[in-house]
Amino acid sequence: MKKLILLRHGQSQWNLENRFTGWTDVDLSQAGREEASGAGRKIRDAGLKPEYFFTSYLRRAIHTLQIAASEMERDWVPVFKDWHLNERHYGALQGLDKSDTARKYGDEQVHIWRRSYDVTPPPLDPSDPRSPAAEEKYASLSQDEIPLTESLETTIARVRPCWEERILPAIRLYDTVMVVAHGNSLRGLAMMLLHLSPDEVMKLEIPTGAPWILELDGRMNAEKNYYL
Amino acid sequence: MKKLILLRHGQSQWNLENRFTGWTDVDLSQAGREEASGAGRKIRDAGLKPEYFFTSYLRRAIHTLQIAASEMERDWVPVFKDWHLNERHYGALQGLDKSDTARKYGDEQVHIWRRSYDVTPPPLDPSDPRSPAAEEKYASLSQDEIPLTESLETTIARVRPCWEERILPAIRLYDTVMVVAHGNSLRGLAMMLLHLSPDEVMKLEIPTGAPWILELDGRMNAEKNYYL
Repeated sequence: MKKLILLRHGQSQWNLENRFTGWTDVDLSQAGREEASGAGRKIRDAGLKPEYFFTSYLRRAIHTLQIAASEMERDWVPVFKDWHLNERHYGALQGLDKSDTARKYGDEQVHIWRRSYDVTPPPLDPSDPRSPAAEEKYASLSQDEIPLTESLETTIARVRPCWEERILPAIRLYDTVMVVAHGNSLRGLAMMLLHLSPDEVMKLEIPTGAPWILELDGRMNAEKNYYL
Repeated sequence: MKKLILLRHGQSQWNLENRFTGWTDVDLSQAGREEASGAGRKIRDAGLKPEYFFTSYLRRAIHTLQIAASEMERDWVPVFKDWHLNERHYGALQGLDKSDTARKYGDEQVHIWRRSYDVTPPPLDPSDPRSPAAEEKYASLSQDEIPLTESLETTIARVRPCWEERILPAIRLYDTVMVVAHGNSLRGLAMMLLHLSPDEVMKLEIPTGAPWILELDGRMNAEKNYYL
């Protein structure tokens, strides 16, 4: 039985400050680093040995992986970093304080942006300095690929090629593969593996710092899944 | 002009304890971590932007790279880890205290092992628990590839395929490539790039934590080289 380990990064500086983060590249807080160590120890203590790692282009996920891999004494294992695994892009809300946003747009509107499947927050202006187009690390993306805002639906749509072209082939090659990413990109993987409906995936809350093990049959359906 | 940045990892726990390290996977000391941050800051302040990283399978090099990349805010840059870039294997001397070894074998013999081009220290017994054959991370190596001891000459011979098959193609693709490795594997790269004789490469001392910049012409000869 193949095993896929999904891990959501721990607390970041902006979670602490209650701001919309999305693609903003903030680092882990001290508590987030401790969550990462704890996750690594749980995986090691469960006797699991990931042979290939995936993560996003965002440092809160990359550092979570580095810390967890070090706890497992598996620093040498190959890592593939892919922007397709980034967090959902929160458009013009990125960087705003969540309570200020609620005062400006109303609680109900913010709830819709956060909890609906296919509604996008207001987009960034393409010339906004917060646009991914302004960052060297997204220079290889086409104009069509650079998000100025995303719904959960469009986030999951761009996670899919990473699943099909990168993660699936790795699972065919290795017994244990691990993905360290974000709440919404991991929801995308879970939706595909567990055949969830939009309603189910919206309600899915993946805890931070808790390794989620999916045992996959030969057709890549998750027969069992549990948190360590 | 293409740029290759070579960086030797900083102080490890065993440098502190004056023991032969080789392929033993010891971590950086606190001083070593500070050397890594300092190297990252120097590269960033020089305006250099590595687009591809190489490192070894040993955590003192991997962690040096992670710390330096973080200082450069280039955590997202791809990393290729290759055992061919490991430190020289010190055979049965690995783990021994350097002064005990000198008392046991004599200063002159130890000097020969450390400072000659083609003399190997006593080999590990294949059944020795220190043998790389006992480690999961070297499981994909053939019997012929697993060293039980190495001279500087045989170290450089196994660095060569990594240079030819991995680093060279990356330099053709990117403007700036960086390799974080070890005293003797970096000597191997320097020998090929600077066309050094065995005598010259033996005398070459690469300082730790100091980024060494090689500016390469279209035929991959280093036209200029300098430390930051």
